[in-house]
Amino acid sequence: MSKPKVFEKPPGVKDYLPETVAKLRQIETNVLECMQKWGYRQIITPTLEYYDTVGVASTTSDRKLFKLLDKKGTTVVLRADVTAPIARVVASLLKDHSFPLRLSYHANVFRAFEDEAGREAEFFQTGAELVGDSSADADAEMVALAIACLKAAGIGHFKIALGHVGFLNGLLQEALPDRPEQQEALKERLLQHDYVGYHDLLRRYELPEAVREELEAILRLRGGQEICEQAKELSRDRGAKEAIGHLCQVWDVLHAYGVSDHVLVDLTMVGDFTYYTGMTFEGYAADLGFPVCSGGRYDNLLAQFDRPAAATGFALKTNRILEVANLDRTDAPYRVLVRYAPGKIGEALACAQQLRQRERVIVETIRMDASDPAASSGRNVSERADGQAGAAEYDEVIEFA
Amino acid sequence: MSKPKVFEKPPGVKDYLPETVAKLRQIETNVLECMQKWGYRQIITPTLEYYDTVGVASTTSDRKLFKLLDKKGTTVVLRADVTAPIARVVASLLKDHSFPLRLSYHANVFRAFEDEAGREAEFFQTGAELVGDSSADADAEMVALAIACLKAAGIGHFKIALGHVGFLNGLLQEALPDRPEQQEALKERLLQHDYVGYHDLLRRYELPEAVREELEAILRLRGGQEICEQAKELSRDRGAKEAIGHLCQVWDVLHAYGVSDHVLVDLTMVGDFTYYTGMTFEGYAADLGFPVCSGGRYDNLLAQFDRPAAATGFALKTNRILEVANLDRTDAPYRVLVRYAPGKIGEALACAQQLRQRERVIVETIRMDASDPAASSGRNVSERADGQAGAAEYDEVIEFA
Repeated sequence: MSKPKVFEKPPGVKDYLPETVAKLRQIETNVLECMQKWGYRQIITPTLEYYDTVGVASTTSDRKLFKLLDKKGTTVVLRADVTAPIARVVASLLKDHSFPLRLSYHANVFRAFEDEAGREAEFFQTGAELVGDSSADADAEMVALAIACLKAAGIGHFKIALGHVGFLNGLLQEALPDRPEQQEALKERLLQHDYVGYHDLLRRYELPEAVREELEAILRLRGGQEICEQAKELSRDRGAKEAIGHLCQVWDVLHAYGVSDHVLVDLTMVGDFTYYTGMTFEGYAADLGFPVCSGGRYDNLLAQFDRPAAATGFALKTNRILEVANLDRTDAPYRVLVRYAPGKIGEALACAQQLRQRERVIVETIRMDASDPAASSGRNVSERADGQAGAAEYDEVIEFA
Repeated sequence: MSKPKVFEKPPGVKDYLPETVAKLRQIETNVLECMQKWGYRQIITPTLEYYDTVGVASTTSDRKLFKLLDKKGTTVVLRADVTAPIARVVASLLKDHSFPLRLSYHANVFRAFEDEAGREAEFFQTGAELVGDSSADADAEMVALAIACLKAAGIGHFKIALGHVGFLNGLLQEALPDRPEQQEALKERLLQHDYVGYHDLLRRYELPEAVREELEAILRLRGGQEICEQAKELSRDRGAKEAIGHLCQVWDVLHAYGVSDHVLVDLTMVGDFTYYTGMTFEGYAADLGFPVCSGGRYDNLLAQFDRPAAATGFALKTNRILEVANLDRTDAPYRVLVRYAPGKIGEALACAQQLRQRERVIVETIRMDASDPAASSGRNVSERADGQAGAAEYDEVIEFA
């Protein structure tokens, strides 16, 4: 094992320089303000949690959890999401608070170091959870809020794909009643968006012609509200029918919000089946292959923390939004450099302090001597224009000589 | 090893509920804005760093570093401070940027779990670093900026204790030239503020009367600018004299900033000797036994990352500030609950959306049915007044029935 080089970082983590931080912070602020407007209150949970409590309840697969041992030999994880920690808080510190509970967060989350290039080990999520409301209205509120947040984050063009785990579960249960492994294998293909593999499996399973056609038909169940009507015809399974009924209600509420133009029904979109129990959704920005947000209903999680309750929520994938967000540049600040001869320090610092009182004025001060790069090099301090820290371009240089 | 209970957290970490988060966020925003006004640009570094790079360069003692192994067997640490990571960034990503560099940060930092009760394993720091300027002006800028930040954070009454590691180093070197272990032992006592122990040690070392009196005299070297004059008389050691000369210059600049009323010279205040190389300071709020900020000059750190440079900086201990800060309560938001009968959903949601456009108006919506706690319990939704999440007190309830 070789020693890392002096400026190396662990794989999958990164530094954010000032220009990027400014943009990231603006996304964070805009989204949290949007959530606040809808009644969501921010909480902060610790980076470290016990594996046996929050770790096992996480939506993240076990092998991707970042685990470590504390001094007593208990396994601790770096949080992989904030939904499970919020469930813990709702069941403990907030156990006397009545439902519905609306909570929001912005946090860094972790995945165990992957050897694959480009995998992130630490990244940001900004999310909201609505606990204690099982209605279609609550699910629709999540989708409508996610849409409002994506707009607030500067995402202009995007679509929300809306699905329901109950439909596919019901349909598969009806078609392959005694073959749970085959059900899982088919779901896995859909989860991976591997539609060719899904087709191949169906063929290999040697199903009756009608059943195979029915299961192939779901790949076409993507579109507007009419999809719900088509889906209703496809299955007689009670669970599947209830799922579609719920999804129709969610659609109606989204229509009432006036946001259904952003939504399309996609019954092949399944999310994580072990975690979600009802509606699920994912947001896709134009020109980006990965989802920028995802969420859904998870009615079984709170019971794991001894306070059974319905819950629905979503998280924005803030780092991906950072790549594509087009934020209105707030007016650039006015940057001033105050240079002073030693004898003029009092006047110079007073001037700097006064200028800092003004809105959007940034003032740096420097004594004119060897440590002043402008004085020592003879070049104009305004020369550099790359906008990075340490290469400041000043709008004005004031001298007290 | 017993399994943790379902809502247990690891020792030393905590959840922050909405009221606390609002206050913490306001301190963070105010302080970062203040730093920005002075030309400091925010950066974000990863939570995980290599032990052999940032870990060993940290000011935190080795046994308090939170260590883990990555999959290749390399030791990784959870960052214990942000100064060492910033030095790494200055020497790598920012290596082409000229000095001086002004950078700021707000981050959570970690200490290995302590068994002692009440020790925090994770807490927040908000800080600034000025890299590439060795002048007394740069040191004074740190102290003046720390004062401005403490005020911005809502700390009304506080004092900054100003010291210099060079003075004590020089004095001890002169008094105990061949006894480095005794020098270290005495410094350790001062670092612990154990003045009785310091006295005892001096007595035990059987020093010449004059030397002992000289070393006892430094305990009285706490006060205003006059202390610098007294200290000048105390030692003929060149290092000690240079240190005092530098401190006098820092004082003069602080006077020019108009903030010297907040400052007192304390030559027994030594900070971490292995890390700091010049001026050090600590801020104390009235009614709080612990410092609320600390900082100093660390001219040797950057060389560890192959870009030797002078540097000075400080960090606010944000969690302690949270305990004592007295912030102007920004106007409380106006909270509205919109309740609707199923048939009135369109009007209700449109009304909610319109109200959310207004400044400081927060709107929650709920369908009137079993999931509406007000409807189901028959009690008034405005009844609860504890101000916590989930127990919202509404300023107005609008019904679409």
